[in-house]
Amino acid sequence: MEYKIALMPGDGIGPEIIKEARKVLDATAKVYGHTFSYEELLLGGASIDAYGEPLTEETIAKAKSADAVLMGAVGADAKTSPWYRLSPEKRPEAGLLKLRKELKLFANLRPAYLYEALKDACPVKEQFYQTGIDLMIVRELTGGLYFGERKTVVENGIAKAVDTLTYDEKEIRRIAKKAFETAVKRKKKVTSVDKANVLDSSRLWRKITEEVAADYPEVTLEHMLVDNCAMQLICNPEQFDVILTENMFGDILSDEASMLTGSIGMLPSASLNETSFGLYEPSHGSAPDIAGKGIANPIAAILSAAMLLRYSFSMEEEAKAIENAVNAVLNEGYRTSDIMSENMKKVSTGEMGDLIIEKI
Amino acid sequence: MEYKIALMPGDGIGPEIIKEARKVLDATAKVYGHTFSYEELLLGGASIDAYGEPLTEETIAKAKSADAVLMGAVGADAKTSPWYRLSPEKRPEAGLLKLRKELKLFANLRPAYLYEALKDACPVKEQFYQTGIDLMIVRELTGGLYFGERKTVVENGIAKAVDTLTYDEKEIRRIAKKAFETAVKRKKKVTSVDKANVLDSSRLWRKITEEVAADYPEVTLEHMLVDNCAMQLICNPEQFDVILTENMFGDILSDEASMLTGSIGMLPSASLNETSFGLYEPSHGSAPDIAGKGIANPIAAILSAAMLLRYSFSMEEEAKAIENAVNAVLNEGYRTSDIMSENMKKVSTGEMGDLIIEKI
Ligand SMILES: CC(C)[C@H](C(=O)O)[C@@H](O)C(=O)O
Ligand SMILES: CC(C)[C@H](C(=O)O)[C@@H](O)C(=O)O
Repeated sequence: MEYKIALMPGDGIGPEIIKEARKVLDATAKVYGHTFSYEELLLGGASIDAYGEPLTEETIAKAKSADAVLMGAVGADAKTSPWYRLSPEKRPEAGLLKLRKELKLFANLRPAYLYEALKDACPVKEQFYQTGIDLMIVRELTGGLYFGERKTVVENGIAKAVDTLTYDEKEIRRIAKKAFETAVKRKKKVTSVDKANVLDSSRLWRKITEEVAADYPEVTLEHMLVDNCAMQLICNPEQFDVILTENMFGDILSDEASMLTGSIGMLPSASLNETSFGLYEPSHGSAPDIAGKGIANPIAAILSAAMLLRYSFSMEEEAKAIENAVNAVLNEGYRTSDIMSENMKKVSTGEMGDLIIEKI
Repeated sequence: MEYKIALMPGDGIGPEIIKEARKVLDATAKVYGHTFSYEELLLGGASIDAYGEPLTEETIAKAKSADAVLMGAVGADAKTSPWYRLSPEKRPEAGLLKLRKELKLFANLRPAYLYEALKDACPVKEQFYQTGIDLMIVRELTGGLYFGERKTVVENGIAKAVDTLTYDEKEIRRIAKKAFETAVKRKKKVTSVDKANVLDSSRLWRKITEEVAADYPEVTLEHMLVDNCAMQLICNPEQFDVILTENMFGDILSDEASMLTGSIGMLPSASLNETSFGLYEPSHGSAPDIAGKGIANPIAAILSAAMLLRYSFSMEEEAKAIENAVNAVLNEGYRTSDIMSENMKKVSTGEMGDLIIEKI
């Protein structure tokens, strides 16, 4: 069977890391006898430069007709880039947000896994986790403050801005199900994070999550306030298996959790809809400061490709092969500069890609 | 001059730690020749039990007539406490939120300072901060999602909940000013945290913050996205001096930052209005699991009393004396159980209070 993958390298380090991920996909296809065809599409700043907008209708249509999307990163330095002189809905990030919405990618899976070899690079002391860090954040991706009505008005000469946080029970139910299904295949624990002592949306979140939990008796459900979770991630990350949360809290907590793994340059993500279709992207941004230097860490993009194989193509074995290859290369002491530590071997973006390919 | 302090011990460990803070205030008054009188008021669950509501009009009036308020903590275990069978606006936390609003306490100052003696208890490796951690979070406290309109409705059989995030330029300007004034007395840097790539309220936040910055040419202003800040706090906490942010982001980031200091049991806070009036409370919660056992750390409450002297009574020397006493006791190796580590001397809540008093 032939699979069609839409590639959206995007901006900054996006093209460099997507190049490596594609190399890894090709190597995997060769070993396992698959055929992957690619179509490159523009997103974010790259699309603004070409078409004047961060995401065109044609790109959306082409993405939809692919079997999965692999994305790099979007955006640039907001202070210096001309893209940020455009109105907010014309900026690079708006393209990504629109794409998530158009493709109905409501479920964002962000694993935070600390490789044994990277313990040195993890800022948290070993005594605070002992056996290891291995958690999965399931973030709602098409609701909440990100997609609520917003406006800025001037009333009696005073500017006032409003954003709206809305969730309905359907939105909560489908993401909660995704979290429980994920937990069933893992350590069977869901920590649902909210701010139920303040927000109505969080109270509904809690109620619906409990309803969904009733269908998964083998999974333990725990509720945690978002402020407490921000603490617990640092002082006791081991307690977590699956963290279920809404869009904005998920944005903040997943970036925080990423730090536990040594570098956000390590972290893949999957954004899924109700079908097997998905968009896969590193959790990191476009890192304009290091773009074009060949020093970016391609591992997050490569692991995103592994997630693509797992979730969209049901190729568990192939996904594992990539993850094992990454593990093996790290164990041999190869590091890009973001995860470099004493006595390790520093390699470039392309070298890291090559080393990983050799192990597949 | 005589000063009137309203004490609101609240729930859980609140009464135990406020008792120690009061002892310290009395000791300070004696040494420096002040007279402090106290009035105890009920807040949160304690008020629900007595009056059926978490904050009465009488309590508000009495708090207003005091020169400052020293608070413990409110709340209990939401799963087991009968307080949480009441409707949201009748629960303990609602009392605290209403009090903040009624007293117009828009500026919440939360320092995160790592004592040399507590480096062992800090989960972050020393190589990630080197010289030390000393930052101040200035959190907007009476706006945003906490106080916007909210509702839960059923539309076509589907429950839907809405919270609203609103800021106007006046609210942003006054908290930004507070942050810059705070930075002037510190390391002269303000990091304003927002989510300007998504939220209208954040874009207004950024604009007004820049306008305010123009009045403080000696202070450097930097903008940072909230997800990035959640990472930077762990991997590079040293870069921060004053962090300025809105209510919900401030809630999350201040709890995260508190972890850097070894224990949230160390962290005081001040909530100020436009005058010298303020409410002072530990950043931690009511910790129902350890309440009544005499093991709670009273230092956050004691340091809150120090902030009270500094900000409401302009007693800088007295505040410093308390802070120095805390430092000295920690240096001598005394620890409550939350900050206990090898070879240290474990003491109870009351013993810690006594030890600190001896040094004043
Ligand atoms: C670029 C930005 C809009 C995006 C988000 O906040 O969702 C990013 O931070 C992420 O987490 O993927
Ligand atoms: C108790 C709760 C409502 C409160 C808040 O979120 O403001 C607390 O977490 C705090 O930070 O003081």
